[in-house]
Amino acid sequence: MTQPFPFAAIVGQEAMKQAMVLTAVDPGIGGVLVFGDRGTGKSTAVRALAALLPPITAVEGCPVNSARPDDCPDWAHVTSRKLVSRPTPVIDLPLGVTEDRVVGALDIERALTRGEKAFEPGLLARANRGYLYIDEVNLLEDHIVDLLLDVAQSGENVVEREGLSIRHAARFVLVGSGNPEEGELRPQLLDRFGLSVEVASPRDIDTRVEVIKRRDAYENDREAFLKKWLKGDAALRKAILAARVALPGLKTPNTVLHDCAALCIALGSDGLRGELTLLRTARALAAFEGAAVVGRAHLRAVAAMALSHRLRRDPLDEAGSGARVARVLAEVLP
Amino acid sequence: MTQPFPFAAIVGQEAMKQAMVLTAVDPGIGGVLVFGDRGTGKSTAVRALAALLPPITAVEGCPVNSARPDDCPDWAHVTSRKLVSRPTPVIDLPLGVTEDRVVGALDIERALTRGEKAFEPGLLARANRGYLYIDEVNLLEDHIVDLLLDVAQSGENVVEREGLSIRHAARFVLVGSGNPEEGELRPQLLDRFGLSVEVASPRDIDTRVEVIKRRDAYENDREAFLKKWLKGDAALRKAILAARVALPGLKTPNTVLHDCAALCIALGSDGLRGELTLLRTARALAAFEGAAVVGRAHLRAVAAMALSHRLRRDPLDEAGSGARVARVLAEVLP
Amino acid sequence: MTQPFPFAAIVGQEAMKQAMVLTAVDPGIGGVLVFGDRGTGKSTAVRALAALLPPITAVEGCPVNSARPDDCPDWAHVTSRKLVSRPTPVIDLPLGVTEDRVVGALDIERALTRGEKAFEPGLLARANRGYLYIDEVNLLEDHIVDLLLDVAQSGENVVEREGLSIRHAARFVLVGSGNPEEGELRPQLLDRFGLSVEVASPRDIDTRVEVIKRRDAYENDREAFLKKWLKGDAALRKAILAARVALPGLKTPNTVLHDCAALCIALGSDGLRGELTLLRTARALAAFEGAAVVGRAHLRAVAAMALSHRLRRDPLDEAGSGARVARVLAEVLP
Amino acid sequence: MTQPFPFAAIVGQEAMKQAMVLTAVDPGIGGVLVFGDRGTGKSTAVRALAALLPPITAVEGCPVNSARPDDCPDWAHVTSRKLVSRPTPVIDLPLGVTEDRVVGALDIERALTRGEKAFEPGLLARANRGYLYIDEVNLLEDHIVDLLLDVAQSGENVVEREGLSIRHAARFVLVGSGNPEEGELRPQLLDRFGLSVEVASPRDIDTRVEVIKRRDAYENDREAFLKKWLKGDAALRKAILAARVALPGLKTPNTVLHDCAALCIALGSDGLRGELTLLRTARALAAFEGAAVVGRAHLRAVAAMALSHRLRRDPLDEAGSGARVARVLAEVLP
Amino acid sequence: MTQPFPFAAIVGQEAMKQAMVLTAVDPGIGGVLVFGDRGTGKSTAVRALAALLPPITAVEGCPVNSARPDDCPDWAHVTSRKLVSRPTPVIDLPLGVTEDRVVGALDIERALTRGEKAFEPGLLARANRGYLYIDEVNLLEDHIVDLLLDVAQSGENVVEREGLSIRHAARFVLVGSGNPEEGELRPQLLDRFGLSVEVASPRDIDTRVEVIKRRDAYENDREAFLKKWLKGDAALRKAILAARVALPGLKTPNTVLHDCAALCIALGSDGLRGELTLLRTARALAAFEGAAVVGRAHLRAVAAMALSHRLRRDPLDEAGSGARVARVLAEVLP
Amino acid sequence: MTQPFPFAAIVGQEAMKQAMVLTAVDPGIGGVLVFGDRGTGKSTAVRALAALLPPITAVEGCPVNSARPDDCPDWAHVTSRKLVSRPTPVIDLPLGVTEDRVVGALDIERALTRGEKAFEPGLLARANRGYLYIDEVNLLEDHIVDLLLDVAQSGENVVEREGLSIRHAARFVLVGSGNPEEGELRPQLLDRFGLSVEVASPRDIDTRVEVIKRRDAYENDREAFLKKWLKGDAALRKAILAARVALPGLKTPNTVLHDCAALCIALGSDGLRGELTLLRTARALAAFEGAAVVGRAHLRAVAAMALSHRLRRDPLDEAGSGARVARVLAEVLP
Repeated sequence: MTQPFPFAAIVGQEAMKQAMVLTAVDPGIGGVLVFGDRGTGKSTAVRALAALLPPITAVEGCPVNSARPDDCPDWAHVTSRKLVSRPTPVIDLPLGVTEDRVVGALDIERALTRGEKAFEPGLLARANRGYLYIDEVNLLEDHIVDLLLDVAQSGENVVEREGLSIRHAARFVLVGSGNPEEGELRPQLLDRFGLSVEVASPRDIDTRVEVIKRRDAYENDREAFLKKWLKGDAALRKAILAARVALPGLKTPNTVLHDCAALCIALGSDGLRGELTLLRTARALAAFEGAAVVGRAHLRAVAAMALSHRLRRDPLDEAGSGARVARVLAEVLP
Repeated sequence: MTQPFPFAAIVGQEAMKQAMVLTAVDPGIGGVLVFGDRGTGKSTAVRALAALLPPITAVEGCPVNSARPDDCPDWAHVTSRKLVSRPTPVIDLPLGVTEDRVVGALDIERALTRGEKAFEPGLLARANRGYLYIDEVNLLEDHIVDLLLDVAQSGENVVEREGLSIRHAARFVLVGSGNPEEGELRPQLLDRFGLSVEVASPRDIDTRVEVIKRRDAYENDREAFLKKWLKGDAALRKAILAARVALPGLKTPNTVLHDCAALCIALGSDGLRGELTLLRTARALAAFEGAAVVGRAHLRAVAAMALSHRLRRDPLDEAGSGARVARVLAEVLP
Repeated sequence: MTQPFPFAAIVGQEAMKQAMVLTAVDPGIGGVLVFGDRGTGKSTAVRALAALLPPITAVEGCPVNSARPDDCPDWAHVTSRKLVSRPTPVIDLPLGVTEDRVVGALDIERALTRGEKAFEPGLLARANRGYLYIDEVNLLEDHIVDLLLDVAQSGENVVEREGLSIRHAARFVLVGSGNPEEGELRPQLLDRFGLSVEVASPRDIDTRVEVIKRRDAYENDREAFLKKWLKGDAALRKAILAARVALPGLKTPNTVLHDCAALCIALGSDGLRGELTLLRTARALAAFEGAAVVGRAHLRAVAAMALSHRLRRDPLDEAGSGARVARVLAEVLP
Repeated sequence: MTQPFPFAAIVGQEAMKQAMVLTAVDPGIGGVLVFGDRGTGKSTAVRALAALLPPITAVEGCPVNSARPDDCPDWAHVTSRKLVSRPTPVIDLPLGVTEDRVVGALDIERALTRGEKAFEPGLLARANRGYLYIDEVNLLEDHIVDLLLDVAQSGENVVEREGLSIRHAARFVLVGSGNPEEGELRPQLLDRFGLSVEVASPRDIDTRVEVIKRRDAYENDREAFLKKWLKGDAALRKAILAARVALPGLKTPNTVLHDCAALCIALGSDGLRGELTLLRTARALAAFEGAAVVGRAHLRAVAAMALSHRLRRDPLDEAGSGARVARVLAEVLP
Repeated sequence: MTQPFPFAAIVGQEAMKQAMVLTAVDPGIGGVLVFGDRGTGKSTAVRALAALLPPITAVEGCPVNSARPDDCPDWAHVTSRKLVSRPTPVIDLPLGVTEDRVVGALDIERALTRGEKAFEPGLLARANRGYLYIDEVNLLEDHIVDLLLDVAQSGENVVEREGLSIRHAARFVLVGSGNPEEGELRPQLLDRFGLSVEVASPRDIDTRVEVIKRRDAYENDREAFLKKWLKGDAALRKAILAARVALPGLKTPNTVLHDCAALCIALGSDGLRGELTLLRTARALAAFEGAAVVGRAHLRAVAAMALSHRLRRDPLDEAGSGARVARVLAEVLP
Repeated sequence: MTQPFPFAAIVGQEAMKQAMVLTAVDPGIGGVLVFGDRGTGKSTAVRALAALLPPITAVEGCPVNSARPDDCPDWAHVTSRKLVSRPTPVIDLPLGVTEDRVVGALDIERALTRGEKAFEPGLLARANRGYLYIDEVNLLEDHIVDLLLDVAQSGENVVEREGLSIRHAARFVLVGSGNPEEGELRPQLLDRFGLSVEVASPRDIDTRVEVIKRRDAYENDREAFLKKWLKGDAALRKAILAARVALPGLKTPNTVLHDCAALCIALGSDGLRGELTLLRTARALAAFEGAAVVGRAHLRAVAAMALSHRLRRDPLDEAGSGARVARVLAEVLP
């Protein structure tokens, strides 16, 4: 409805902004989990990202935003073959949403009026090729988070309920915000998010005054404020699109693969999702920075966001997982 | 139904009355939470406020009280473009209300008789541009409070249930009353209320006798009593309307922004909602008092109600959060 | 169905009988809570009161017993304007009653057969202008008790469920019986009852033999027994009606207001509901006794029933709240 | 279906048999609670009682077995005025019975086929003027037991559910069996049973062999066995009928009332239900024994079954409540 | 569907096999409870028993397998009077069975299409005159087990639900298997099973190799294997039929009754179900062995399976209840 | 949808791959349980297996994939007798699947539109003659796992719900993956899986780099990668088919049976499922390896996967059950 706060006008919070930009370059990185107190601008950033992202091309009337007519699901009965431009979908999971609205369900209206068993797609269908945002992911029930991560990872929504047996593409980046003081996510769930970042309130007066000022300007004279930041957002969008084009041609030296494996073994991370995500994120960064070859510097820059939520908790090490990643990084990839 | 007790006739309870008046000047301040024992006139004050507030202008027949015909939601099928005057809505959340009545739901009658899937708006629709009052907010389930605060903050009610996918404006001031002895609200919920005040029974005989007398007069000879206090309410209403007009032209010196940030850093309040609310409330007070520039005195006057519910509990400091705000105020903004 | 035991024939239990009579003089006093073991005649007394009360005048066919045709609720579609005499309603909340029968609900029959969304009033509608009796109030779920007290206090039943949005008058005296050994009511609920009395089995043989004799006579030769006590009940009814007439003209000296406030401050009762109820009950007593002016003696006579359930529990004072009221009474109003 | 074991053929268990016979003489005594291990013949005795009881005269087709056509409830639409003879109803509460079958409910068939809101009576209707038997009363949920006792005491079933508002006579003797090792009944529930008895397996070989023999004979040659015991049952039935006739004419000296009260005060039983039941049971015994005047001996004979379940538990007195009744009996009524 | 493993081919597990055979001789003994680890052939034995049992003669089309046309229940509307031969029903209670399928329920199809309230019988109806098998009885909810035992004991299924009031014969032997490590049955439930046996894996290699061989032969060349064991099963079936004929003519000396009672008193078993079952099982054994008179040897042979699950747990006696029965047996019936 | 990762391209994880191959040779072995952290390629392996398996021949249109027209269930009304080739079904149990979709249920559409009570088969029907995969089996509720194992073992799905009484073949291999850190399965459930294997992340850099490389190649140039590994998968498929043919002719010397029994007795495994599975798996391995006689070497090779999940936990033996099997193996079958 209302025009969101510009992404470029967000003060500080560099890690969060970078993580979001990198998933825009390569959605295959997986979701982003943003930890932090309320009031630190998490929701603002997601909504800002929505306005920043380049539009997608999709089949007219296709409920899952398919790029080609032949990809539209059978149950949708899409007849048009025309392609249209749509904003990148950013779907917001509202509080109190019912499960049938998430995964889709029997279309009651058609069942009652025509006696047909038709499928009515849910939010997962609408989120295909875009973003799905969950505010306070730790307040959702585990089985819903599990379901969302499952679909996010497989890229497919499988519905087996109420006599329906449906599947459709559901490739999206999951962005979750959470407050660690309000209860923690299970390690299994953490591991399935691609990246994680922490945000906190700035501690110096000048930054805080700057935040208040921009917020105030946005609320009191929105049009002027948006105009002022238009250019910043456009530049960012252009850089993302360029990175997407560059990504497939990027070189990945064998030494970088070794670095990934060595770092993860040193950190003792379970499974192989750690190094796969680390590599992918480093590549997205390299592409975004215009490099032709991914290097150790890129790995270092993204290691914390790709790995810190995959470490086992170490009760003897009070430094926090971010600090552990930094320390091991210094030893293994000096 | 019956004419409520006049706002001006309420004995004492200055902080509560001021908080309510300031949200009437600028509804963007956010909700008010009133703490205190039963029997201290919390409900009375809210109902009194209802009678005090100036009417709004809305499209005839619009279920969300839209100010302009083009703002009426599609699903409402409003055909009239005529504007009418309505009392400021003050919606009361009755005990035992079901969730479908809060957010709205499928209109069963139309579904059964005409086979149509129409939306029947709930209390959130009716509360648009007004007040929503919850007595004993701590007796509501967390997910409902969360939902109400979410809508109050975004100004939009998003409904995804029973095959419906609806959104409509729902901008209102949430007023909650609670008794801290009956169970506490989660810090996350507290932070989302704009202001908080505490009320208590007066401790001196004369004030209590005055309360009994006025209450008695109201119950035994209502008409005479209401007539007597009519003028006081009218004066207050006029002052509120004047403040609304003055608010956009109010000057905010940079030093005031610095004061806000410094005070919040000194208090260690999480996030930036504290200073944003503090500034906004101070401005509303300045406008209400007819000042041209918001100043340190205004900040001081409203700091307790804007900040005391956002402090972390300090087990070593028994003075209570109100006293902590006062002490830090004396140090930082002397 | 069967003719109840006469009120006048109840042996002893003076406080309980007085509390019930005073709420019959002024229903605005609020509900009565009767504490005590089973088998002490609580239910008997309520049912006896029903037979004692004078009839009311109500619009023919009005589901909420309205006194004037214009007060009948819209949803009732009452067409008659004729006034008829009805017994004072005494509604019994049966065990296992469902919530829809308490507050009213969608009329399923009309919904199914005619496709109309009509309201079917519940017990709260029938209880308007009368009594609502709950045996073992502590066995009811808190949310139902809360709802009942809420309606009892506001005098209005607000229904927001199943697509209905209905309100109707529901002014009644709530009489609850409870056994403190079976679990306590929350302080918040206690405070919302106007009066409270305790009943116990008599401890002397003669009284107990008298109880057995009367009960025996009632069961073995009901007609003769009822005839014998007819006069006693009739005298009481007449006194209640006279008191109702006298009540508005009763004088309340300022000193009495001071006494109320002083007593409540000395007892440390929270909120102002204590002194308001105390004053109101003293007035009803004065009117019942035929006095022209309410005095300190009246306050003393009803202080225990109006205040003892509003005191905070004092773990160092084993005397019980009744004794505390008596002691403070002796100090403050000697 | 099959012919039950004859009441007269039950070996031992005199207290249980006497309690059942006395409630057959005067159903107003209230229910009987039989405590004891499984396998001690509790169910057998109740089913035997059913065959023993004299038939009742009831209106043809009346669902509540009314004795006079005018007593048939309106909702039953009974048109016949003919009286017929029926066996005394003994209704068995089967395990897993649903609440709607106990109290009655909306007749779904008529609602669906004719769109009428008719009442379909439940087991409480069928039990009117007879017995209701609950095996393992402690396995029922408290609210059902409470409901059953409530109806048993008031003699009326009040149904307020599913849009129905129905009441009908439901006067029956409640017989419950329970095993104290499987969880206890709340004192409040205990107090509402008229009588209680304990049963145990016989401890001597000869009695046990006799039990086996009779049981064996019953199972292997039922007809011969039933014929043999026919006379015993008939004699008992005749005695019960004679006692019913004699009961109203029985004299009750004042000293007996004093004895009742003195005994209950000495035992410290709460409420007055103890002495009322004691008196009533003693009278039934006197009538059954053909006495013209009830005396102290009758009180002594039934004191244990009328009072032992109403005593407060005394942790310092290990003798059990039966022994306490016996000891106080010896002191107070020597 | 597939032909089960032959009963005669089961290696070892003599107690379990004997208990099953004796209930086939006299179903009045009551159910059998088989304790033991998974993988010891409990399910196999029950399914083998099914194939072994002689067929029954029943009315064509009768849903409860009635032996005579007049025994068919009214609600079944059986018109045929022809008798047909059917295999002894062995009904398997599948995991996840819903309660309506156990006891029977309203026939929804007929209710919806013809508006009739017809009864659709459940598994209890089908099990009449046969066996009902529950694998892992301890995983069923208590109320279902209770219900099953109740019906098994009374031989009648009483349905009071959904407006139905139905009863039909349901005489069956209940066979339950359970694993004591997975949670115990309540003593009350244990007592209602007629017999109990324990099974365990054989501890010597040769027996185990024999088990593997036979199982292997059954799976790899089923036809040859079944043919080989056909004779063994047929001999057993003939012996069971002969025992059924002999049973009524069997003599029971008084000394045997004394032995039963003495043994149960010595063991301290509650109730009389112990000696009744013991006697009945000893008789079945005597008949099966072709004896004309039941004797002490028969009692000794079946005492453990008839009594060990009825003993109170003795925390000071670690020998287990089977050993206690053996020890007392040696003392009392030397 | 997308072509899965080739089975042959999976790096390491030999035990898991062998277990899956052996159940493909002989589905009668029972399910496979794969333990291990997330991210170790469990799901990848199952999906890879799906593509590897040879197709089955089934009746056209048969919902349970019957091999012969006469095996199609009655309720399916299959009229075609034509045989078609289908991929081996590999059914995935999606998170959030409802029980009616697992076992099948009443076909609501036909019930509503035609008033017929038809059965709509569930996932168990579709899985017949194939595989059923459950990711994170420990997150499913116990009763569902129990139900799945019950059906997997009996090869038949018995449905008794909603008035349906249906059975159909459901022979499938159950593959479950689980994480022991997320909660354990009950021993009873463990015992019902045929085989179990543990997987872990490789610990050396080179293997990890190899995994990353292959994964990367699969994601970046899928077609080339799949082509490269086509041959490996085809060879494996051929070996499986050859083993199936050879299996019935395989010789099993008596000494091997003795070895099985001796090993299980030495390990103290309960029940006989251990040796039966061990024998069967050893035979499948022998057939797969082209041996004519099963020998001790085959037993040794599969003992750990067939037995380690059937051992009782030994708190004094920290070596883990795999090590215990190895140690006992060395002693008993040197």
